[in-house]
Amino acid sequence: MRLRNKPWAKEYIENNSHIVEQQPEKWKNKWKERFGSDHPIYVEVGSGKGKFVNELAEKYPEINVIGIELYESVIVRGVERAVEKPKPNLILLQQNVEDLTEFFGKEEIDRLFINFTDPWPKKRHAKRRLTNAGFLKKYEEVLKREAEIHFKTDNQGLFEYSLESIANYGMKLQNISLDLHQSGMEDNIMTEYEQKFSEKGMRIYRLEARLH
Amino acid sequence: MRLRNKPWAKEYIENNSHIVEQQPEKWKNKWKERFGSDHPIYVEVGSGKGKFVNELAEKYPEINVIGIELYESVIVRGVERAVEKPKPNLILLQQNVEDLTEFFGKEEIDRLFINFTDPWPKKRHAKRRLTNAGFLKKYEEVLKREAEIHFKTDNQGLFEYSLESIANYGMKLQNISLDLHQSGMEDNIMTEYEQKFSEKGMRIYRLEARLH
Ligand SMILES: C[S@@+](CC[C@H](N)C(=O)[O-])C[C@H]1O[C@@H](n2cnc3c(N)ncnc32)[C@H](O)[C@@H]1O
Ligand SMILES: C[S@@+](CC[C@H](N)C(=O)[O-])C[C@H]1O[C@@H](n2cnc3c(N)ncnc32)[C@H](O)[C@@H]1O
Repeated sequence: MRLRNKPWAKEYIENNSHIVEQQPEKWKNKWKERFGSDHPIYVEVGSGKGKFVNELAEKYPEINVIGIELYESVIVRGVERAVEKPKPNLILLQQNVEDLTEFFGKEEIDRLFINFTDPWPKKRHAKRRLTNAGFLKKYEEVLKREAEIHFKTDNQGLFEYSLESIANYGMKLQNISLDLHQSGMEDNIMTEYEQKFSEKGMRIYRLEARLH
Repeated sequence: MRLRNKPWAKEYIENNSHIVEQQPEKWKNKWKERFGSDHPIYVEVGSGKGKFVNELAEKYPEINVIGIELYESVIVRGVERAVEKPKPNLILLQQNVEDLTEFFGKEEIDRLFINFTDPWPKKRHAKRRLTNAGFLKKYEEVLKREAEIHFKTDNQGLFEYSLESIANYGMKLQNISLDLHQSGMEDNIMTEYEQKFSEKGMRIYRLEARLH
């Protein structure tokens, strides 16, 4: 994700704290209260400019959606989208996914999305990949027993790695697609990266994982 | 695999019983004796016209190689190859892989290859796929604890299925490649189907699985 300097971003985000929750640790184990409903909670880690979470929240008003993105200059685009078209069931967190367990309690999340996450191709950076065992452990801590992880990427090396990492962690694999856009998928919500890469004719890879 | 009627095949195979062992159950738990060496035993299931097993045996004289192929009219090509260029470390079996445990004992096999096996795309035929759980169970019964299964295919649907089947069976995955011929693989021995499909520009998928 290219970072452009956006001096106004910080203030804009803080002024929209109903969208970007500023104290997520306060709501640990209480997100249903924060949303004001006990609908299922779906989280996207590394949500970037927020196209996917905004569209997901719009399409499924009965799902509560949280997008986690580290960078101010990136997440701000998702805030703008949510300001333009408000969704009571969408919250963004400007946080590091590494700290996931600080703001979510045990079995608090119903589904987790990992979309086009940074591939970190160098082996010594493998721990930073959001499908690394260290992250899977954190996801397991906050996901319901029957929850699913949905993962999409255009990156062949990352998909190869993630298949191994997720399977060898002991999760179950299902609905693998090695060419999503040729697989007659239904209900696919395109992310910003997915749109970019599939327009270039690149294959999109996808898998679903279950803890049990 | 297209089957051509080859009336001479049956006799030719029987006349070459030093290559096509006619009573494999007799050698259960005793294949080292049959080969006359205690070298590791590598087996290809569905070995077709025998290009892969012949080249494997030739390249690695210190490995004992067994190819299993059901059809007379197909296996006979592998026999011809072995007659043209004899290899003391190659045996072919004209058998159904379903009967694997009738001719191999516990932990008798060191590595198993599944190459371009019939995809059986219809769901109701899934049990016939050589990466189905029923077959994996048989492989587990005859493979050494530390053994690997090496699987290659051009068929996207079969590879998707096999990833799920193998991972969900509880085996470990390693060295997955979603485009083998672009992956700088070393030591790859091309099978007849691999040659045909990669010449057409199709991707070759590959994975390795470990029982433990
Ligand atoms: C390549 S972008 C993809 C964005 C979007 N999901 C999509 O599919 O278009 C990945 C995003 O994940 C974010 N990200 C990566 N690691 C993160 C982490 N540990 N915590 C929070 N965000 C992270 C990056 O900042 C980047 O914006
Ligand atoms: C598509 S061909 C591939 C041959 C070769 N391995 C290659 O890669 O070129 C698959 C072969 O597996 C054989 N086969 C499939 N199921 C089998 C079974 N249950 N027992 C024995 N052979 C089988 C078929 O007869 C066929 O010759």
